[in-house]
Amino acid sequence: MVKDLAVGKSSLGKLNIQGEIEKAIKVVTGEEVEVIASGRTDAGVHSLGQTANFKIENEIPIEKIPLALNSQLKKTIVIKSAEEVTDNFHARFSCKGKKYRYIINTSITGSAIWRDFEYHLPVKLDINNIIKASKYLIGEHDFKAFKASGTSSKSSVRKIYNIEIKQEGDRIYLEYTGNGFLYNMVRIISGTLVDVGSGKIKPEEVKNILELQDRSKAGKTLPAHGLYLVEVYY
Amino acid sequence: MVKDLAVGKSSLGKLNIQGEIEKAIKVVTGEEVEVIASGRTDAGVHSLGQTANFKIENEIPIEKIPLALNSQLKKTIVIKSAEEVTDNFHARFSCKGKKYRYIINTSITGSAIWRDFEYHLPVKLDINNIIKASKYLIGEHDFKAFKASGTSSKSSVRKIYNIEIKQEGDRIYLEYTGNGFLYNMVRIISGTLVDVGSGKIKPEEVKNILELQDRSKAGKTLPAHGLYLVEVYY
Repeated sequence: MVKDLAVGKSSLGKLNIQGEIEKAIKVVTGEEVEVIASGRTDAGVHSLGQTANFKIENEIPIEKIPLALNSQLKKTIVIKSAEEVTDNFHARFSCKGKKYRYIINTSITGSAIWRDFEYHLPVKLDINNIIKASKYLIGEHDFKAFKASGTSSKSSVRKIYNIEIKQEGDRIYLEYTGNGFLYNMVRIISGTLVDVGSGKIKPEEVKNILELQDRSKAGKTLPAHGLYLVEVYY
Repeated sequence: MVKDLAVGKSSLGKLNIQGEIEKAIKVVTGEEVEVIASGRTDAGVHSLGQTANFKIENEIPIEKIPLALNSQLKKTIVIKSAEEVTDNFHARFSCKGKKYRYIINTSITGSAIWRDFEYHLPVKLDINNIIKASKYLIGEHDFKAFKASGTSSKSSVRKIYNIEIKQEGDRIYLEYTGNGFLYNMVRIISGTLVDVGSGKIKPEEVKNILELQDRSKAGKTLPAHGLYLVEVYY
Protein backbone atom coordinates (compact mmCIF):
# COMPACT_ATOMS: atom_id res chain seq x y z
CA MET A 1 0.00 0.00 0.00
CA VAL A 2 1.15 3.48 -0.77
CA LYS A 3 0.27 5.40 2.35
CA ASP A 4 -0.03 9.11 2.83
CA LEU A 5 -0.05 10.03 -0.77
CA ALA A 6 -0.11 13.81 -0.91
CA VAL A 7 -1.30 15.62 -3.97
CA GLY A 8 -0.72 19.30 -4.60
CA LYS A 9 -3.59 21.37 -5.80
CA SER A 10 -2.16 22.66 -8.99
CA SER A 11 -2.03 19.11 -10.30
CA LEU A 12 -5.68 18.41 -9.93
CA GLY A 13 -7.94 18.79 -12.87
CA LYS A 14 -4.88 18.73 -15.08
CA LEU A 15 -3.36 15.45 -13.98
CA ASN A 16 -4.67 11.94 -13.83
CA ILE A 17 -3.01 11.08 -10.54
CA GLN A 18 -3.71 7.38 -10.73
CA GLY A 19 -2.23 7.30 -14.22
CA GLU A 20 0.84 9.28 -13.20
CA ILE A 21 1.58 6.88 -10.34
CA GLU A 22 1.02 3.86 -12.58
CA LYS A 23 3.53 5.33 -15.05
CA ALA A 24 6.06 5.87 -12.24
CA ILE A 25 5.64 2.27 -11.07
CA LYS A 26 6.19 1.09 -14.63
CA VAL A 27 9.47 3.01 -14.82
CA VAL A 28 10.68 1.83 -11.40
CA THR A 29 9.62 -1.84 -11.57
CA GLY A 30 8.91 -2.51 -15.22
CA GLU A 31 5.49 -3.74 -14.19
CA GLU A 32 2.09 -2.58 -15.41
CA VAL A 33 -0.18 -2.45 -12.42
CA GLU A 34 -3.45 -0.92 -11.40
CA VAL A 35 -3.33 1.62 -8.60
CA ILE A 36 -6.45 1.60 -6.41
CA ALA A 37 -7.04 4.72 -4.31
CA SER A 38 -9.25 5.05 -1.21
CA GLY A 39 -11.67 7.00 -3.37
CA ARG A 40 -11.87 9.94 -5.72
CA THR A 41 -11.70 13.49 -4.47
CA ASP A 42 -13.61 16.24 -6.25
CA ALA A 43 -11.50 18.13 -8.78
CA GLY A 44 -9.53 20.89 -7.07
CA VAL A 45 -9.53 19.32 -3.61
CA HIS A 46 -6.14 19.06 -1.88
CA SER A 47 -4.95 15.76 -0.47
CA LEU A 48 -2.64 15.73 2.52
CA GLY A 49 -3.01 12.00 3.10
CA GLN A 50 -4.61 9.99 0.33
CA THR A 51 -3.93 6.23 0.23
CA ALA A 52 -3.73 3.71 -2.59
CA ASN A 53 -2.69 0.10 -3.06
CA PHE A 54 -1.05 -1.88 -5.85
CA LYS A 55 0.61 -5.25 -6.24
CA ILE A 56 4.08 -5.77 -7.71
CA GLU A 57 6.34 -8.78 -8.19
CA ASN A 58 9.52 -6.70 -8.03
CA GLU A 59 11.48 -7.19 -4.81
CA ILE A 60 12.41 -3.56 -4.25
CA PRO A 61 12.48 -2.99 -0.45
CA ILE A 62 9.23 -1.43 0.66
CA GLU A 63 10.99 1.51 2.36
CA LYS A 64 12.57 2.48 -0.96
CA ILE A 65 9.23 2.77 -2.76
CA PRO A 66 8.42 6.39 -1.80
CA LEU A 67 11.70 7.91 -2.99
CA ALA A 68 11.84 5.69 -6.07
CA LEU A 69 8.35 6.74 -7.18
CA ASN A 70 8.84 10.39 -6.16
CA SER A 71 11.92 10.54 -8.37
CA GLN A 72 9.61 9.80 -11.32
CA LEU A 73 6.62 11.86 -10.27
CA LYS A 74 5.86 15.52 -10.86
CA LYS A 75 6.38 17.64 -7.74
CA THR A 76 2.64 18.03 -7.38
CA ILE A 77 2.37 14.37 -6.32
CA VAL A 78 4.37 13.10 -3.36
CA ILE A 79 4.39 9.55 -1.97
CA LYS A 80 4.94 10.08 1.74
CA SER A 81 5.18 6.46 2.87
CA ALA A 82 4.54 2.87 1.84
CA GLU A 83 3.91 -0.35 3.72
CA GLU A 84 3.18 -3.95 2.87
CA VAL A 85 -0.35 -5.19 3.27
CA THR A 86 -2.06 -8.57 3.04
CA ASP A 87 -3.47 -9.75 -0.26
CA ASN A 88 -7.05 -9.03 0.71
CA PHE A 89 -6.36 -5.36 1.44
CA HIS A 90 -8.26 -2.93 -0.77
CA ALA A 91 -7.63 0.82 -0.37
CA ARG A 92 -11.30 1.60 -0.96
CA PHE A 93 -13.21 -1.37 0.46
CA SER A 94 -10.97 -1.78 3.52
CA CYS A 95 -11.32 1.92 4.39
CA LYS A 96 -12.87 2.50 7.82
CA GLY A 97 -13.08 6.25 7.73
CA LYS A 98 -11.76 9.56 6.49
CA LYS A 99 -10.93 12.96 7.82
CA TYR A 100 -11.57 16.12 5.79
CA ARG A 101 -10.73 19.75 6.59
CA TYR A 102 -12.37 22.87 5.21
CA ILE A 103 -10.60 26.22 5.64
CA ILE A 104 -12.42 29.57 5.44
CA ASN A 105 -10.61 32.91 5.54
CA THR A 106 -13.11 35.48 6.81
CA SER A 107 -10.83 38.53 6.57
CA ILE A 108 -12.08 41.44 4.52
CA THR A 109 -9.32 41.34 1.93
CA GLY A 110 -8.35 37.65 1.86
CA SER A 111 -4.85 36.34 1.31
CA ALA A 112 -2.74 36.82 -1.82
CA ILE A 113 -0.53 33.91 -0.84
CA TRP A 114 -3.03 31.30 0.36
CA ARG A 115 -5.75 32.20 -2.15
CA ASP A 116 -5.70 28.71 -3.72
CA PHE A 117 -5.62 26.94 -0.35
CA GLU A 118 -8.61 28.41 1.48
CA TYR A 119 -12.05 29.78 0.73
CA HIS A 120 -12.25 33.54 1.09
CA LEU A 121 -15.57 34.66 2.58
CA PRO A 122 -15.38 38.19 4.00
CA VAL A 123 -18.25 37.67 6.45
CA LYS A 124 -18.18 37.61 10.25
CA LEU A 125 -19.25 34.13 11.33
CA ASP A 126 -20.62 33.21 14.77
CA ILE A 127 -18.47 30.24 15.67
CA ASN A 128 -20.59 29.28 18.68
CA ASN A 129 -23.65 28.89 16.50
CA ILE A 130 -21.62 26.85 14.01
CA ILE A 131 -20.48 24.52 16.80
CA LYS A 132 -24.06 24.22 18.03
CA ALA A 133 -25.35 23.36 14.56
CA SER A 134 -22.56 20.86 13.91
CA LYS A 135 -23.73 18.71 16.85
CA TYR A 136 -26.90 17.77 14.95
CA LEU A 137 -24.83 16.23 12.19
CA ILE A 138 -22.75 13.94 14.37
CA GLY A 139 -23.85 10.30 14.36
CA GLU A 140 -25.41 8.05 11.74
CA HIS A 141 -27.85 9.86 9.47
CA ASP A 142 -29.23 9.83 5.97
CA PHE A 143 -27.32 12.76 4.49
CA LYS A 144 -29.48 13.03 1.37
CA ALA A 145 -29.90 16.78 1.99
CA PHE A 146 -26.13 17.18 1.84
CA LYS A 147 -25.20 15.36 -1.32
CA ALA A 148 -24.88 16.73 -4.82
CA SER A 149 -28.14 16.25 -6.68
CA GLY A 150 -27.93 13.74 -9.47
CA THR A 151 -25.32 11.53 -7.77
CA SER A 152 -26.37 7.93 -7.51
CA SER A 153 -24.85 6.36 -4.42
CA LYS A 154 -26.75 3.27 -3.37
CA SER A 155 -27.27 4.70 0.10
CA SER A 156 -26.83 8.18 1.49
CA VAL A 157 -26.55 6.95 5.08
CA ARG A 158 -23.18 7.87 6.59
CA LYS A 159 -21.81 8.18 10.08
CA ILE A 160 -19.96 11.30 11.19
CA TYR A 161 -17.82 10.51 14.23
CA ASN A 162 -16.73 14.01 14.99
CA ILE A 163 -16.79 17.61 13.74
CA GLU A 164 -14.10 19.83 15.19
CA ILE A 165 -14.36 23.57 14.69
CA LYS A 166 -11.50 25.92 15.41
CA GLN A 167 -10.93 29.63 14.90
CA GLU A 168 -7.44 31.09 14.53
CA GLY A 169 -7.45 34.81 13.81
CA ASP A 170 -9.55 35.34 10.70
CA ARG A 171 -9.50 31.67 9.73
CA ILE A 172 -12.08 29.03 10.58
CA TYR A 173 -11.18 25.35 10.32
CA LEU A 174 -13.97 22.78 10.00
CA GLU A 175 -12.70 19.22 10.46
CA TYR A 176 -14.91 16.24 9.77
CA THR A 177 -14.20 12.61 10.65
CA GLY A 178 -16.61 9.95 9.45
CA ASN A 179 -16.94 6.46 8.03
CA GLY A 180 -17.42 7.94 4.56
CA PHE A 181 -18.67 11.03 2.78
CA LEU A 182 -21.00 11.43 -0.19
CA TYR A 183 -20.02 13.38 -3.28
CA ASN A 184 -19.75 17.08 -2.31
CA MET A 185 -21.05 16.28 1.19
CA VAL A 186 -18.29 18.06 3.11
CA ARG A 187 -18.58 21.12 0.91
CA ILE A 188 -22.38 21.27 1.26
CA ILE A 189 -22.28 20.76 5.04
CA SER A 190 -19.62 23.49 5.24
CA GLY A 191 -21.84 25.78 3.16
CA THR A 192 -24.74 25.08 5.50
CA LEU A 193 -22.62 25.79 8.58
CA VAL A 194 -21.57 29.07 6.95
CA ASP A 195 -25.27 29.97 6.62
CA VAL A 196 -25.62 29.27 10.34
CA GLY A 197 -22.52 31.33 11.15
CA SER A 198 -23.71 34.30 9.11
CA GLY A 199 -27.13 34.19 10.76
CA LYS A 200 -28.99 33.24 7.60
CA ILE A 201 -30.39 30.16 9.31
CA LYS A 202 -30.65 29.13 12.97
CA PRO A 203 -28.50 26.29 14.36
CA GLU A 204 -31.66 24.19 15.04
CA GLU A 205 -32.62 24.48 11.37
CA VAL A 206 -29.79 22.05 10.52
CA LYS A 207 -31.69 19.32 12.35
CA ASN A 208 -34.75 19.98 10.16
CA ILE A 209 -32.74 20.02 6.93
CA LEU A 210 -31.22 16.68 7.87
CA GLU A 211 -34.61 15.15 8.68
CA LEU A 212 -36.43 16.60 5.69
CA GLN A 213 -33.64 15.33 3.39
CA ASP A 214 -34.16 18.38 1.21
CA ARG A 215 -31.06 19.51 -0.66
CA SER A 216 -32.66 22.85 -1.50
CA LYS A 217 -32.82 23.82 2.20
CA ALA A 218 -29.09 23.15 2.77
CA GLY A 219 -26.36 25.68 2.03
CA LYS A 220 -24.46 26.05 -1.18
CA THR A 221 -21.56 23.84 -2.19
CA LEU A 222 -18.44 25.71 -1.10
CA PRO A 223 -15.56 25.76 -3.61
CA ALA A 224 -13.19 22.79 -3.80
CA HIS A 225 -10.00 24.78 -3.15
CA GLY A 226 -10.82 25.19 0.55
CA LEU A 227 -11.09 21.42 1.07
CA TYR A 228 -8.42 18.93 2.17
CA LEU A 229 -8.53 15.16 2.46
CA VAL A 230 -6.44 14.88 5.64
CA GLU A 231 -6.33 11.20 6.44
CA VAL A 232 -7.77 7.81 5.51
CA TYR A 233 -8.31 5.26 8.28
CA TYR A 234 -8.06 1.45 8.09
CA MET B 1 0.33 54.75 3.24
CA VAL B 2 -0.76 51.40 1.97
CA LYS B 3 -0.09 49.10 4.89
CA ASP B 4 0.16 45.36 4.95
CA LEU B 5 0.42 44.87 1.29
CA ALA B 6 0.51 41.13 0.70
CA VAL B 7 1.91 39.69 -2.46
CA GLY B 8 1.40 36.11 -3.55
CA LYS B 9 4.39 34.20 -4.75
CA SER B 10 3.18 33.25 -8.18
CA SER B 11 3.10 36.91 -9.11
CA LEU B 12 6.73 37.56 -8.40
CA GLY B 13 9.16 37.52 -11.23
CA LYS B 14 6.24 37.86 -13.56
CA LEU B 15 4.65 40.99 -12.20
CA ASN B 16 5.94 44.45 -11.57
CA ILE B 17 4.06 44.92 -8.32
CA GLN B 18 4.75 48.62 -8.03
CA GLY B 19 3.52 49.10 -11.59
CA GLU B 20 0.38 47.05 -11.01
CA ILE B 21 -0.54 49.10 -7.95
CA GLU B 22 0.14 52.36 -9.79
CA LYS B 23 -2.18 51.19 -12.56
CA ALA B 24 -4.90 50.34 -10.02
CA ILE B 25 -4.55 53.79 -8.40
CA LYS B 26 -4.89 55.38 -11.82
CA VAL B 27 -8.15 53.51 -12.47
CA VAL B 28 -9.59 54.30 -9.03
CA THR B 29 -8.53 57.95 -8.69
CA GLY B 30 -7.58 59.02 -12.17
CA GLU B 31 -4.21 60.14 -10.78
CA GLU B 32 -0.76 59.11 -11.90
CA VAL B 33 1.30 58.61 -8.79
CA GLU B 34 4.52 56.94 -7.76
CA VAL B 35 4.22 54.09 -5.29
CA ILE B 36 7.19 53.85 -2.91
CA ALA B 37 7.65 50.49 -1.15
CA SER B 38 9.65 49.80 2.02
CA GLY B 39 12.19 48.09 -0.18
CA ARG B 40 12.58 45.46 -2.83
CA THR B 41 12.33 41.77 -2.02
CA ASP B 42 14.37 39.24 -3.97
CA ALA B 43 12.44 37.65 -6.84
CA GLY B 44 10.39 34.72 -5.60
CA VAL B 45 10.11 35.90 -1.99
CA HIS B 46 6.62 35.97 -0.48
CA SER B 47 5.32 39.10 1.23
CA LEU B 48 2.82 38.80 4.05
CA GLY B 49 3.15 42.43 5.09
CA GLN B 50 4.92 44.75 2.67
CA THR B 51 4.24 48.48 2.96
CA ALA B 52 4.23 51.33 0.44
CA ASN B 53 3.21 54.97 0.31
CA PHE B 54 1.76 57.26 -2.32
CA LYS B 55 0.10 60.66 -2.41
CA ILE B 56 -3.27 61.38 -4.03
CA GLU B 57 -5.50 64.43 -4.31
CA ASN B 58 -8.65 62.38 -4.63
CA GLU B 59 -10.83 62.49 -1.50
CA ILE B 60 -11.78 58.84 -1.43
CA PRO B 61 -12.11 57.83 2.27
CA ILE B 62 -8.93 56.12 3.41
CA GLU B 63 -10.80 53.04 4.62
CA LYS B 64 -12.16 52.46 1.11
CA ILE B 65 -8.71 52.37 -0.47
CA PRO B 66 -7.96 48.64 0.10
CA LEU B 67 -11.15 47.29 -1.47
CA ALA B 68 -11.09 49.85 -4.28
CA LEU B 69 -7.53 48.92 -5.26
CA ASN B 70 -8.09 45.18 -4.71
CA SER B 71 -11.01 45.31 -7.13
CA GLN B 72 -8.51 46.38 -9.81
CA LEU B 73 -5.58 44.17 -8.81
CA LYS B 74 -4.77 40.61 -9.76
CA LYS B 75 -5.48 38.13 -6.95
CA THR B 76 -1.77 37.68 -6.37
CA ILE B 77 -1.60 41.19 -4.88
CA VAL B 78 -3.81 42.13 -1.95
CA ILE B 79 -3.92 45.49 -0.16
CA LYS B 80 -4.71 44.56 3.43
CA SER B 81 -5.03 48.02 4.95
CA ALA B 82 -4.33 51.69 4.38
CA GLU B 83 -3.82 54.67 6.66
CA GLU B 84 -3.06 58.36 6.29
CA VAL B 85 0.45 59.53 7.06
CA THR B 86 2.17 62.89 7.34
CA ASP B 87 3.78 64.46 4.28
CA ASN B 88 7.31 63.59 5.42
CA PHE B 89 6.58 59.87 5.66
CA HIS B 90 8.60 57.67 3.30
CA ALA B 91 7.98 53.91 3.23
CA ARG B 92 11.67 53.18 2.81
CA PHE B 93 13.48 55.95 4.68
CA SER B 94 11.03 56.01 7.61
CA CYS B 95 11.33 52.24 8.06
CA LYS B 96 12.63 51.26 11.53
CA GLY B 97 12.88 47.54 11.00
CA LYS B 98 11.63 44.42 9.30
CA LYS B 99 10.73 40.87 10.16
CA TYR B 100 11.50 37.97 7.83
CA ARG B 101 10.62 34.28 8.17
CA TYR B 102 12.36 31.34 6.53
CA ILE B 103 10.58 27.96 6.45
CA ILE B 104 12.41 24.66 6.01
CA ASN B 105 10.61 21.32 5.59
CA THR B 106 13.03 18.62 6.73
CA SER B 107 10.78 15.64 5.98
CA ILE B 108 12.18 12.97 3.68
CA THR B 109 9.60 13.39 0.95
CA GLY B 110 8.62 17.05 1.23
CA SER B 111 5.17 18.44 0.60
CA ALA B 112 3.28 18.35 -2.70
CA ILE B 113 1.00 21.12 -1.53
CA TRP B 114 3.39 23.56 0.11
CA ARG B 115 6.30 22.96 -2.29
CA ASP B 116 6.33 26.61 -3.45
CA PHE B 117 6.02 27.97 0.09
CA GLU B 118 8.88 26.28 1.95
CA TYR B 119 12.38 24.98 1.28
CA HIS B 120 12.55 21.20 1.23
CA LEU B 121 15.76 19.91 2.79
CA PRO B 122 15.50 16.23 3.78
CA VAL B 123 18.18 16.44 6.47
CA LYS B 124 17.84 16.06 10.23
CA LEU B 125 18.83 19.40 11.79
CA ASP B 126 19.96 19.89 15.38
CA ILE B 127 17.76 22.76 16.48
CA ASN B 128 19.66 23.36 19.71
CA ASN B 129 22.86 23.98 17.81
CA ILE B 130 21.00 26.30 15.43
CA ILE B 131 19.67 28.30 18.39
CA LYS B 132 23.17 28.44 19.90
CA ALA B 133 24.68 29.69 16.63
CA SER B 134 21.94 32.26 16.09
CA LYS B 135 22.92 34.05 19.33
CA TYR B 136 26.20 35.19 17.78
CA LEU B 137 24.30 37.05 15.07
CA ILE B 138 22.08 39.08 17.36
CA GLY B 139 23.19 42.67 17.85
CA GLU B 140 24.90 45.22 15.62
CA HIS B 141 27.50 43.66 13.33
CA ASP B 142 29.11 44.09 9.95
CA PHE B 143 27.31 41.36 8.02
CA LYS B 144 29.68 41.44 5.05
CA ALA B 145 30.07 37.64 5.24
CA PHE B 146 26.32 37.27 4.80
CA LYS B 147 25.62 39.47 1.82
CA ALA B 148 25.52 38.50 -1.83
CA SER B 149 28.90 39.17 -3.40
CA GLY B 150 28.88 42.01 -5.89
CA THR B 151 26.17 43.99 -4.14
CA SER B 152 27.19 47.52 -3.38
CA SER B 153 25.47 48.75 -0.25
CA LYS B 154 27.27 51.68 1.29
CA SER B 155 27.57 49.88 4.60
CA SER B 156 27.03 46.27 5.54
CA VAL B 157 26.49 47.07 9.21
CA ARG B 158 23.03 46.02 10.38
CA LYS B 159 21.41 45.31 13.69
CA ILE B 160 19.51 42.09 14.32
CA TYR B 161 17.16 42.53 17.26
CA ASN B 162 16.04 38.96 17.55
CA ILE B 163 16.17 35.54 15.90
CA GLU B 164 13.40 33.18 16.90
CA ILE B 165 13.70 29.53 16.00
CA LYS B 166 10.80 27.12 16.23
CA GLN B 167 10.28 23.51 15.26
CA GLU B 168 6.83 22.13 14.49
CA GLY B 169 6.91 18.52 13.36
CA ASP B 170 9.20 18.33 10.33
CA ARG B 171 9.20 22.09 9.82
CA ILE B 172 11.72 24.59 11.13
CA TYR B 173 10.84 28.29 11.24
CA LEU B 174 13.63 30.87 11.41
CA GLU B 175 12.33 34.34 12.19
CA TYR B 176 14.58 37.39 12.00
CA THR B 177 13.81 40.90 13.24
CA GLY B 178 16.30 43.65 12.51
CA ASN B 179 16.69 47.28 11.53
CA GLY B 180 17.42 46.22 7.97
CA PHE B 181 18.78 43.34 5.92
CA LEU B 182 21.32 43.26 3.10
CA TYR B 183 20.56 41.70 -0.26
CA ASN B 184 20.24 37.91 0.26
CA MET B 185 21.30 38.29 3.89
CA VAL B 186 18.41 36.31 5.43
CA ARG B 187 18.86 33.52 2.90
CA ILE B 188 22.62 33.30 3.50
CA ILE B 189 22.26 33.38 7.30
CA SER B 190 19.61 30.66 7.00
CA GLY B 191 21.98 28.62 4.83
CA THR B 192 24.70 29.03 7.43
CA LEU B 193 22.37 27.98 10.25
CA VAL B 194 21.44 24.92 8.18
CA ASP B 195 25.15 24.05 8.01
CA VAL B 196 25.25 24.29 11.80
CA GLY B 197 22.13 22.17 12.16
CA SER B 198 23.44 19.46 9.88
CA GLY B 199 26.75 19.35 11.77
CA LYS B 200 28.81 20.65 8.85
CA ILE B 201 30.08 23.51 11.01
CA LYS B 202 30.08 24.11 14.76
CA PRO B 203 27.85 26.80 16.32
CA GLU B 204 30.93 28.77 17.45
CA GLU B 205 32.16 28.91 13.85
CA VAL B 206 29.38 31.41 13.08
CA LYS B 207 31.14 33.92 15.35
CA ASN B 208 34.34 33.49 13.31
CA ILE B 209 32.56 33.83 9.98
CA LEU B 210 30.97 37.05 11.19
CA GLU B 211 34.31 38.46 12.40
CA LEU B 212 36.33 37.33 9.38
CA GLN B 213 33.71 38.89 7.06
CA ASP B 214 34.39 36.11 4.59
CA ARG B 215 31.41 35.22 2.40
CA SER B 216 33.08 31.98 1.28
CA LYS B 217 32.97 30.60 4.84
CA ALA B 218 29.24 31.23 5.24
CA GLY B 219 26.57 28.83 4.01
CA LYS B 220 24.88 28.84 0.65
CA THR B 221 22.04 31.18 -0.28
CA LEU B 222 18.86 29.21 0.38
CA PRO B 223 16.16 29.46 -2.32
CA ALA B 224 13.80 32.44 -2.33
CA HIS B 225 10.59 30.42 -2.15
CA GLY B 226 11.15 29.58 1.56
CA LEU B 227 11.36 33.26 2.51
CA TYR B 228 8.62 35.62 3.70
CA LEU B 229 8.70 39.33 4.45
CA VAL B 230 6.40 39.26 7.47
CA GLU B 231 6.23 42.82 8.70
CA VAL B 232 7.73 46.28 8.26
CA TYR B 233 8.08 48.50 11.33
CA TYR B 234 7.83 52.33 11.56
